[in-house]
Amino acid sequence: MARNIVPRDKDYSQWYLDVIKASELADYAPVRGCMVIRPTGYALWENIQKAFDEAFKETGHVNAYFPLLIPTSFLEKEAEHVEGFAPECAVVTHAGGDELEEPLIIRPTSETVIGHMYSKWVQSWRDLPILINQWCNVMRWEKRPRLFLRTSEFLWQEGHTAHATREEAVEETLRMLDVYRRIMVDHLALPVIPGEKSEGERFPGADNTYTCETMMSDGKALQAGTSHFLGQNFAKAFDISFQSQEGTQEYAWTTSWGVSTRLIGAILMTHSDDDGLVLPPRIAPVKAVIVPISTDGVLIEETLLPKARELASRLNAALGARAVTVDSQFHLRPADRFFHHLQRGIPLRLELGERELASQTLRSVRRDTAEKADIPWEGMEETVAALLETMQGELLTKARAFRQDRTRRAETFEELKAILEKEGGFVEAFFGGGKAEEKAIKEATMATVRCFPLDDDSRGTCFFTGKKDARRAVFARAY
Amino acid sequence: MARNIVPRDKDYSQWYLDVIKASELADYAPVRGCMVIRPTGYALWENIQKAFDEAFKETGHVNAYFPLLIPTSFLEKEAEHVEGFAPECAVVTHAGGDELEEPLIIRPTSETVIGHMYSKWVQSWRDLPILINQWCNVMRWEKRPRLFLRTSEFLWQEGHTAHATREEAVEETLRMLDVYRRIMVDHLALPVIPGEKSEGERFPGADNTYTCETMMSDGKALQAGTSHFLGQNFAKAFDISFQSQEGTQEYAWTTSWGVSTRLIGAILMTHSDDDGLVLPPRIAPVKAVIVPISTDGVLIEETLLPKARELASRLNAALGARAVTVDSQFHLRPADRFFHHLQRGIPLRLELGERELASQTLRSVRRDTAEKADIPWEGMEETVAALLETMQGELLTKARAFRQDRTRRAETFEELKAILEKEGGFVEAFFGGGKAEEKAIKEATMATVRCFPLDDDSRGTCFFTGKKDARRAVFARAY
Repeated sequence: MARNIVPRDKDYSQWYLDVIKASELADYAPVRGCMVIRPTGYALWENIQKAFDEAFKETGHVNAYFPLLIPTSFLEKEAEHVEGFAPECAVVTHAGGDELEEPLIIRPTSETVIGHMYSKWVQSWRDLPILINQWCNVMRWEKRPRLFLRTSEFLWQEGHTAHATREEAVEETLRMLDVYRRIMVDHLALPVIPGEKSEGERFPGADNTYTCETMMSDGKALQAGTSHFLGQNFAKAFDISFQSQEGTQEYAWTTSWGVSTRLIGAILMTHSDDDGLVLPPRIAPVKAVIVPISTDGVLIEETLLPKARELASRLNAALGARAVTVDSQFHLRPADRFFHHLQRGIPLRLELGERELASQTLRSVRRDTAEKADIPWEGMEETVAALLETMQGELLTKARAFRQDRTRRAETFEELKAILEKEGGFVEAFFGGGKAEEKAIKEATMATVRCFPLDDDSRGTCFFTGKKDARRAVFARAY
Repeated sequence: MARNIVPRDKDYSQWYLDVIKASELADYAPVRGCMVIRPTGYALWENIQKAFDEAFKETGHVNAYFPLLIPTSFLEKEAEHVEGFAPECAVVTHAGGDELEEPLIIRPTSETVIGHMYSKWVQSWRDLPILINQWCNVMRWEKRPRLFLRTSEFLWQEGHTAHATREEAVEETLRMLDVYRRIMVDHLALPVIPGEKSEGERFPGADNTYTCETMMSDGKALQAGTSHFLGQNFAKAFDISFQSQEGTQEYAWTTSWGVSTRLIGAILMTHSDDDGLVLPPRIAPVKAVIVPISTDGVLIEETLLPKARELASRLNAALGARAVTVDSQFHLRPADRFFHHLQRGIPLRLELGERELASQTLRSVRRDTAEKADIPWEGMEETVAALLETMQGELLTKARAFRQDRTRRAETFEELKAILEKEGGFVEAFFGGGKAEEKAIKEATMATVRCFPLDDDSRGTCFFTGKKDARRAVFARAY
């Protein structure tokens, strides 16, 4: 049906790009590796932001803004951190017509500059905890860019907190992981698996990294968000120290956590189909479009269009400003008008023709299932709201079933390899290896440890090292 | 009273910095000329954003995101534009470990890169108008930085629209100026003067620039926001052309308009006093603080604190989440607790002591006038909301009266010079000169044409050139 979108089973990568293009989510910027987030994509990002931001504030966090440019010397203060990020940095060497004395990097992440500021702000235990989040752009130069998934510049939030004790910092790390899980499941309809990262997949400079992993519709994994327990590594590198209640001088314990515009790629690859974008209603910028249809131009002008606007305004009062729009592309055939909204992932199409006018109804068509219904104008606010919530729930259920269906267990390396080779998807297996073993497995299978799921406390023999009492890990090829 | 704030009449510049420090609005970043917007300052920015963003959306605009980095060659495509901005640019020469083939600048403003994208998106008259806004960071290297007013990096919004006709673009330019005026007056309590800029003060590349000018409490002017009619200059430089309804190929007409974090400086220097920050209630992040007071620790713990929380939660339900907080700094003396909130500009202090407990009231103290009142718990939601609105109105009235009081008229250059020298403030005078005359006046007086007010259509003889039929201009020294 979608003439401008390659089917998923033919070329998944091309399908992904075609859906972005057809839905006008994003475009390529003139600088290689960078993107333009178009209004449709940005409105989606605003709704994602709103959901997370409210949850951050409810858990006591405040927003702030730290500078874009970081002295190169800052990065070097934490050994693992510089090793991880230096190769990806964009460097400012000139400004205001002069060469700079010290080159500045565009932030790839802000632990260093925020650590520097916290060391100024924290003196006493009374100054702790600091619970700050920042919404901003960051830059990590990408050799193989891909819209939303890997772009040299992307938008994200980065939470940075400092605590008086190890326990509090660990608790915060896990609290924010759970906030991520909750918003991803409830709003983005992503059935994520919260888990702990393996040694080889940790954030550079972290003692421990937690993740929400989710499966795309090609069976590959995507890391949707991470939460890091940074121990005292950055506190020591930047001297975030304080006088404790007992009068001793202590280093703080810090955390950081982030989600980015990559989530738009995750939503796309979880819910969309060969016709284009499918969006969970709770974060869809436009939740429904009313389409007046008739071959009678006078009827449209004098009756259908005014009625459509009246109904849209009633629905907007209930569902939120600008949640429902009216299609007036009368220069297009009805099928093309339908297709326009289908490709853009508008959850509900509400047709208003002569039949509907006579029966005082709207003909609803669901984007996800194409299911149709007649919705009486009377009480339509409740009916439409309920239908959208049903769709939201069903999208999550469907994605979860898909993941469960494509998750297998392996007892041996041969099994693991065979499953990844033939079927892809997630493979669960007991694993007790370290960085070296992870590397060997990756070389042989292109798969990595996605996480040790937090809700799975079973133990068994490692399929790779034979060690006893190993935790269960999820392996997969990943974006 | 404020031991850590120099009085305004002693050293206005130092007062400004002291107020920022005491209220924790911002701090200096480790990179010269850059700032950290601290949580108090950022929450204020979020409220300012919310007010403008809603007004942009109500007038049909959508948000998008364009890239941070711009090829240097783009800037050179518009002659006046490159002349205006090139000297202030920060330049990225290396990225991902390699030297770049073409250096990239960090956007000082985005007309060029957005023009490039619009030329891809606009083919037909059906693609117009494009009404896009962007919230982002920009960079203009500052030799003499000043927190909020002139920082090398700042946050702003930049609207960029493209239209099929000149008339539509002019209408848009003035519509957005009026949106600015309305939000600045109604929400920020800034009695701005909307006007047209003189030739010498136009945006580089614009045919015409409009501005909202406002007076600070030292009598100097501050440009609070500008709206530019760009004619076809950028459309021609970037080939934004389209097939018209009549089948001819035409260049589009574009506009751009912006307000920035500089507005925080404007709010500070309009309303604050020698004790510290004063904020208009509509944009104050925290609108009231309940302060339980007693020397009886048990009474505080068992009665006052729980009651304060209950009242705060009732007020938050009415005024918005987190609008009212409870002070629990019991390690400080009451005077110091009061002072803490006074310096931070919390509009209302609501004291809850034994007397108030007995009479079931709260003792309110206004930040702006120190006026006190007893507010019964019963119906306090309405009383507090009304009191905050009264304060909002009075702050605007006071600022407007101050401006009127410090605005004089001059008939001759000698008069203009004398007023600026002795009294400062705004001077109104008929002016018909061009760039050269503006320069001469600036050299003699340090004052510039702030604007030709739009609501003043009187005409007279220019004090400088003797030309007849000159428009009335406002002259002032400016930030």
